[in-house]
Amino acid sequence: MVLLTALVVLGQAHAQTDPLPSWNEGSAKQAILDFVRVTTDKAGPKFVPSEARIATFDNDGTLWVEQPIYTQVTFAIDRVVALAPTHPEWKEQAPFKAILSRDRAAMAKFTLQDIEKIVAVTHSGMTVEAFAGIVKEWVAGATHPRFKRPYTELVYQPMLEVMKYLRDNGYRTYIVTGGGQEFVRVIAEPVYGVPPEQVIGSAGQTKYGYGKDGNSTLVKVPKVLLIDDKAGKPEAINFIIGRRPYAAFGNSTGDQQMLEWTQAGDGARLMVLVHHDDATRECAYGAMSKIGAFPDALMAEAKKRGWVVISMKNDWKKVFAFDGHH
Amino acid sequence: MVLLTALVVLGQAHAQTDPLPSWNEGSAKQAILDFVRVTTDKAGPKFVPSEARIATFDNDGTLWVEQPIYTQVTFAIDRVVALAPTHPEWKEQAPFKAILSRDRAAMAKFTLQDIEKIVAVTHSGMTVEAFAGIVKEWVAGATHPRFKRPYTELVYQPMLEVMKYLRDNGYRTYIVTGGGQEFVRVIAEPVYGVPPEQVIGSAGQTKYGYGKDGNSTLVKVPKVLLIDDKAGKPEAINFIIGRRPYAAFGNSTGDQQMLEWTQAGDGARLMVLVHHDDATRECAYGAMSKIGAFPDALMAEAKKRGWVVISMKNDWKKVFAFDGHH
Repeated sequence: MVLLTALVVLGQAHAQTDPLPSWNEGSAKQAILDFVRVTTDKAGPKFVPSEARIATFDNDGTLWVEQPIYTQVTFAIDRVVALAPTHPEWKEQAPFKAILSRDRAAMAKFTLQDIEKIVAVTHSGMTVEAFAGIVKEWVAGATHPRFKRPYTELVYQPMLEVMKYLRDNGYRTYIVTGGGQEFVRVIAEPVYGVPPEQVIGSAGQTKYGYGKDGNSTLVKVPKVLLIDDKAGKPEAINFIIGRRPYAAFGNSTGDQQMLEWTQAGDGARLMVLVHHDDATRECAYGAMSKIGAFPDALMAEAKKRGWVVISMKNDWKKVFAFDGHH
Repeated sequence: MVLLTALVVLGQAHAQTDPLPSWNEGSAKQAILDFVRVTTDKAGPKFVPSEARIATFDNDGTLWVEQPIYTQVTFAIDRVVALAPTHPEWKEQAPFKAILSRDRAAMAKFTLQDIEKIVAVTHSGMTVEAFAGIVKEWVAGATHPRFKRPYTELVYQPMLEVMKYLRDNGYRTYIVTGGGQEFVRVIAEPVYGVPPEQVIGSAGQTKYGYGKDGNSTLVKVPKVLLIDDKAGKPEAINFIIGRRPYAAFGNSTGDQQMLEWTQAGDGARLMVLVHHDDATRECAYGAMSKIGAFPDALMAEAKKRGWVVISMKNDWKKVFAFDGHH
């Protein structure tokens, strides 16, 4: 009984001293622990008051899987298929024809205009509540083609630990995604514990009006309000939060400006990139990857600026919560 | 001594039971107290969980004085005067000429294009940090022409009490202003206790770039990002917060849609309009007031929809903190 108690106490002590159990010991893990220690040490020179503790996270490729294609693109494709019976003209109309005939070669050549057309028909014309309902239902039913699991399970366990660790230390965790704000809001609360007002993303406009019952409505319209990518990320962070982050996490050139802007603040700042170099458990992108590009230039930039680069392969004990018990 | 103690205890008890001491008893005060009671009563049918407790406040005319002209317009005029020495051409150039020659008749006829020109030269071309510094300095030095006090003292004491009362009961108080977001953020924290990320306002775009030191910068550019007025208010609230408010406070037709959208939610909702009917202590606008219009149609709407209308004259014991000790 004494031994058992001792073991329980030891177990608890270990849990308390390792907030990042899915991480291997190494410079990436240490940088995160050090950052939190110095910014929460009230007596230290790098203390950050709690109201200023902001950490921003890219979503696709930083918090969840973005390969072989962005989850939201899969959603849009599935929506085109679901809506096709009420749009018989799509059978002969680009870009819908390519989707409906499963013409992967044509889909691979989609232009920005094609994608805009697909986003317009799948992401507008309904109230904001109706859209959230459609996303929720899709997320509940969809599975990833390779992992054969819901997309909401394809989140990186080590990153969930970082988010929780930061929140436990008074940081507010924001998602700053190039993906659609209203799409990501649906999954952010249940999956990441991030509330809607802490999700910043690319967004379309809405139009205020009145429904049949006379009650007011907000309907999604096919006009861009902001694109939250590259330079758009620091611009949107300043617009929506009005504070500079102390920590920023990304995985691609789309996140570079967010990390630069974070670093340009004074005191301790933490800039982190997730490097996808684990073909076995997830993906090894390579410099030429079509999405989530991590070119040599970004790696050079990270080295020059002293950013932390996470090697999925070496820094993470597990990638997903289900790793090790398939 | 016993009597003194008794008086102190009584005084404390009274302070605890009256969170709105600057309010006269009446239906407006009672509606606010009732709303907070039912939405925070865990056992009641109208309980609102703390994460959903959002209250939105218009600024000009709802939280601080907006007469004879919006404070931010005074700021812009003062900035034109301050910048004039480096722009000698303005002496002969509309609309600047009217400001520099103090031609009030010409200024009263300013068109939207004139105002856009003034906003462009006074609200862009500098980093976001530089702009905040300019506003801070101006606010510290400027005084209101009638009240001869800093603008930051011309806030309605009863509304400060409502904001604090809501926050004490787990509500997050947001400012949702037609005024400039970055202008209002400067005063919102010290004056209202509202942090920058809870200030939503009309906003211009910023442009990400690099300064001479190679560090990244955000420079304000003269392009509109959003106009946070009328239908723009619920649209911006949905965009930035992603939640529908449970309480909304305004004072003009610019706030009507925000109140309608608040009311269209289920459960208990509180919609409040401040009616400026106190010419002695502040202003009596009348239906034809140029700014902050409260036309008969808005009063009729408020009655039809059961919105609370605050009479400054009858509902407020004092308007400003300094009332009673001039």
